[in-house]
Amino acid sequence: MKIIETSRAPNPRRVRIFLAEKGIDMVYEQIDIMQEEQRLQHFTALNPLQRVPVLVLDDGTSLCETIAICRYFEALQPEPSLFGASPMEKAVIEMWNRRMELNLFFHIAQYFRHLNPNMAHLEVPQVAEWGEANKPRAMDGMKLLDAQLAANAFVAGDKYSVADITALVAIDFLKPAGLEQPPGLNNLARWYGEISARPSAKA
Amino acid sequence: MKIIETSRAPNPRRVRIFLAEKGIDMVYEQIDIMQEEQRLQHFTALNPLQRVPVLVLDDGTSLCETIAICRYFEALQPEPSLFGASPMEKAVIEMWNRRMELNLFFHIAQYFRHLNPNMAHLEVPQVAEWGEANKPRAMDGMKLLDAQLAANAFVAGDKYSVADITALVAIDFLKPAGLEQPPGLNNLARWYGEISARPSAKA
Repeated sequence: MKIIETSRAPNPRRVRIFLAEKGIDMVYEQIDIMQEEQRLQHFTALNPLQRVPVLVLDDGTSLCETIAICRYFEALQPEPSLFGASPMEKAVIEMWNRRMELNLFFHIAQYFRHLNPNMAHLEVPQVAEWGEANKPRAMDGMKLLDAQLAANAFVAGDKYSVADITALVAIDFLKPAGLEQPPGLNNLARWYGEISARPSAKA
Repeated sequence: MKIIETSRAPNPRRVRIFLAEKGIDMVYEQIDIMQEEQRLQHFTALNPLQRVPVLVLDDGTSLCETIAICRYFEALQPEPSLFGASPMEKAVIEMWNRRMELNLFFHIAQYFRHLNPNMAHLEVPQVAEWGEANKPRAMDGMKLLDAQLAANAFVAGDKYSVADITALVAIDFLKPAGLEQPPGLNNLARWYGEISARPSAKA
């Protein structure tokens, strides 16, 4: 079993942190998306969408999509649970993971992809006006996160979950994207210090 | 327990179909997003992101995000399973549901939101060039779906799942969005006929 990924890209990092939290060892193989190695035939056969990461099982089966890979390992090894145990816990973690994806990570990524000249070969066409439109939305996403963290230790409540992983990777992607946190988000700062200090954050 | 929704919007339809497939009765309460009723204080208190659908439990707890609501009911009533049972089944359904969301439904919705004048108050700013950029991507999403259905009865394999619900709602949203299927997608047509004929499709 191995994961084919690009270590600097944010989605592969979500999987690495997830597996580190689970204590699952993995073999990682790199491809260079800036050199368009994802367009090569052997990789396209594994993922027609030409995106990383891809999990390749020993029988050659490939599994794509960051959260699908995470759910596979959650099902194989339920503890520590990162997607929740009770029906309400599962639902609330799904809600907050999606909010962090759709209302934070997505906007930071769109800003980056549509405005960074190095992304011109991956994002065709780049639409600068759309990139800019994502900036205030990313700020709103951070304010939503800060408000949630005023009353909760973690993004989805009182336990660490996959929603914290998505939020951490999104926040760490601000800098490469060329964005900054709005001032005064003290709850976010408290949480960020704690989450970044976990060993998994270095994965 | 009730769901507050807008019956014509596509995401609420995903939940209605899901609950119909599960055989779960629900009380639905309408708000009019074209009249901006989602900005009213009582609704914003339930979902700060001002989006439908929202599930409201008897104790007043609200649960947002279409797939989070679906997962809540999957956990409460596992049969018939719409998110998969084995680890691999769960992962493959997650992968295909996300592919249908991110590579099909999303592009159709972005095209609609950025180009339809009626959406100008919900999508600020509308960026026409970005709307147009989503058209070829929506077409690619349909070709991806057609290729998958060449070898599979359903979107995620040999069983009906939540990925079929997302794909059906996306395909039915082509018309309001002002898009058409590319010609010759015969596998998609076969699947669409079957899925549309299920009683749940009328939900």
